[in-house]
Amino acid sequence: MEDIKLELENKNFQELKEQLKNLNIADIATLFESLEEPQQIIILFKLLSKDVAADVFSFLNSDMQETIINALKDKEIEHIMADLYMDDAADFVQEMPANVVKRVLKNTTKENRDIINKLLSYPENSAGSIMTTEFIDIKQELTVDEAFKKIKKKATDAETVGTIFVTDSKRKIQGVLSIKDLILANSDDKIENIMNPNVVYSTTHTDQEEVSKLFDKYDFYALPIIDTENRLVGIVTVDDIMDVVKEEATEDMEIMAAISPTDDPYLKTSAFTHAKKRIFWLLFLTLSASITGAIMSFFEDAFVAIPALVTFIPMLMGTGGNCGSQSATLVIRGLALNEITLKDYFKVAFKEFKVSLLVSSVLSIVNFVIVWIRYGDPLLGLVIALSLVIVVIIAEFIGGGLPILAKKCKLDPAIMAAPIISTLVDCIAIVSYFLIASAILGL
Amino acid sequence: MEDIKLELENKNFQELKEQLKNLNIADIATLFESLEEPQQIIILFKLLSKDVAADVFSFLNSDMQETIINALKDKEIEHIMADLYMDDAADFVQEMPANVVKRVLKNTTKENRDIINKLLSYPENSAGSIMTTEFIDIKQELTVDEAFKKIKKKATDAETVGTIFVTDSKRKIQGVLSIKDLILANSDDKIENIMNPNVVYSTTHTDQEEVSKLFDKYDFYALPIIDTENRLVGIVTVDDIMDVVKEEATEDMEIMAAISPTDDPYLKTSAFTHAKKRIFWLLFLTLSASITGAIMSFFEDAFVAIPALVTFIPMLMGTGGNCGSQSATLVIRGLALNEITLKDYFKVAFKEFKVSLLVSSVLSIVNFVIVWIRYGDPLLGLVIALSLVIVVIIAEFIGGGLPILAKKCKLDPAIMAAPIISTLVDCIAIVSYFLIASAILGL
Repeated sequence: MEDIKLELENKNFQELKEQLKNLNIADIATLFESLEEPQQIIILFKLLSKDVAADVFSFLNSDMQETIINALKDKEIEHIMADLYMDDAADFVQEMPANVVKRVLKNTTKENRDIINKLLSYPENSAGSIMTTEFIDIKQELTVDEAFKKIKKKATDAETVGTIFVTDSKRKIQGVLSIKDLILANSDDKIENIMNPNVVYSTTHTDQEEVSKLFDKYDFYALPIIDTENRLVGIVTVDDIMDVVKEEATEDMEIMAAISPTDDPYLKTSAFTHAKKRIFWLLFLTLSASITGAIMSFFEDAFVAIPALVTFIPMLMGTGGNCGSQSATLVIRGLALNEITLKDYFKVAFKEFKVSLLVSSVLSIVNFVIVWIRYGDPLLGLVIALSLVIVVIIAEFIGGGLPILAKKCKLDPAIMAAPIISTLVDCIAIVSYFLIASAILGL
Repeated sequence: MEDIKLELENKNFQELKEQLKNLNIADIATLFESLEEPQQIIILFKLLSKDVAADVFSFLNSDMQETIINALKDKEIEHIMADLYMDDAADFVQEMPANVVKRVLKNTTKENRDIINKLLSYPENSAGSIMTTEFIDIKQELTVDEAFKKIKKKATDAETVGTIFVTDSKRKIQGVLSIKDLILANSDDKIENIMNPNVVYSTTHTDQEEVSKLFDKYDFYALPIIDTENRLVGIVTVDDIMDVVKEEATEDMEIMAAISPTDDPYLKTSAFTHAKKRIFWLLFLTLSASITGAIMSFFEDAFVAIPALVTFIPMLMGTGGNCGSQSATLVIRGLALNEITLKDYFKVAFKEFKVSLLVSSVLSIVNFVIVWIRYGDPLLGLVIALSLVIVVIIAEFIGGGLPILAKKCKLDPAIMAAPIISTLVDCIAIVSYFLIASAILGL
């Protein structure tokens, strides 16, 4: 890598060109990402051979794509746009400013322009927005031999030849087969006899998360996507689904941390946008926590009488929050992976109850002993121990239950994670604690 | 689905057998999962045609696999074991109790038994433990036509024909090509001239997370795995990597919620195991929170003089915890997805500082107004507002910084999430709050 950068600086272009031929597309893209000078980026791009330029281009981030496009002639843009897969072309166009889009589309064939516009018209996170239109479809009347010839003709443009789709004259999907089926068949077998007529598909408007669940269930490499008139219009490939799986996990983690989710990488998001995405929940949670504070004022007499009581508040609130967030995290993830379904409600509640009994016993005993030794007062130890039992049981019940309840109400279970659970548990913890203290210590 | 279950109850076995032929493997597996009676499970399995039985078997959970194996004759087990892909066979054997394993391996060919034992010997979460040994490898001297013939011979047993590997006589990998390259080539082209000699591979002991990063970078469908003597011994396919990506996200979420991670689904894990996986961190965090409590006792005079001060503790602690966990979550996820690297430390710190200024301004102003109105005391409002600014800045600094520090120390950044951050921030929040209160209110 350092070698290549050195040659770029020394302008050994001929050697550089040779070396680039031996690199994988993704490695060339990494090389680009390591360059800072726009001039170097442009030179390196122009050194790429024609057959990899578009592939490399699709791997680059949008800032770099813009730099390159602005340095290319119309003719060169035309080549790139002809070679890009349509889903990559649409992603690229979407990220560019208006003036670049105008120039790019001017240098795109009418046919591809229509496809790009169509792809961009699908709702965000829909199957239509992540599919590609370059797939291989054949007719069921063909023999295996004829099919291979057809595939050979179409393969250059297709994103994958691994899965082959069978359509009728109205472009409706009739069946599906893998290249392995085709290789194993006899050359005069009819496609209709070896294809699987039982096709699993999605529509252009299906949410990408649903699509990813189909990949998970069936272990597909590619899934056909049909439009509202049942015509095959695209395919989603497994590499796109890998990105979806990651995006969805990130989104869940962000929601679980009370952040409005975003698709943009951390460093590319401005501080102002970051603040905007965090402030809503913070404000909401701050105000909720004030309610806990207001409730505490009812117990002022108690903590003025025994100020030591106040010093246990962080521990009780912290433990309640942690227990609740443990349960919530496990249940939210279980729901996301379909390991837990709505009808498991009682199983989850019962399991969390058993766990909370075990966990709270250990915590109570340890804290009882510590408090007794430190304050020399077994009654105070008892207050803390009992409060811990109540707080842990309630926390795990709420933590395990609220995500399922959210799902039942068609909300995203991830909302019911640490921040909301903690705020709720805090309030219950404080009330239980002071009630127990008042009863046992006779305040 | 309900139809089929009804026919199973009515013992319409002949019709049932026909209907099963029209179902996808994964759908048949779903049908199995919906059955409760062991007797029904066994009958249904025996109705499957021989060529799909092993495929369906590999989709079932281990309880069901055990039920079925126990009902099969030796001859039938032999068939299943011959038809299973080796990685599925190893996964299955790993989950069975000793007596079942003994019977299964007795009915497995010596060759397959050795492969299974070898696969089981690789460390958990290594490339070796998730790879399959059934791939297609050819020699570089072949022509495309000869290669196709070779592939046709090997395809039945291979997990994928999408990627073909080129090896020499010592089984060392020389190149790689896709089935698409092969289809597009001329029938008399030599493999060595069309293959990509620049092969990306992992070793059997590479961590699966590293392997998944290669899939992410190169958009592979399959990656070759070599042993310590550089021989090609297996391949990892993209569907296995999908599982890895999910597992790794789950693991991160669990660690972030202070749970020792586990591979087992929520409902399949006993309450005792659940408790064991949660208690360590809870105990540790409880004891840490006690330190915060101990520090609070230094400020007893302050809150006995103005008991209202106590009522703001939940709000300050909660806000600090939430801010810290927002920052930590974003940075942990950014590190996991390689969007943030270690050298971005100052960029992250500076961004979090700007965000905390924005966020804390809003929170401070809102709370200042509320406290002033409610308590009629602008000075108390000032104490809360100032404390919020300090707490939010420190929380986001710690939340953004600790995960990067952890990574620098070769620890998993996910450890530095909400629970630890909250406990640390709580302590700092309380001290800052009482110091500010003492200074402004003259306590």
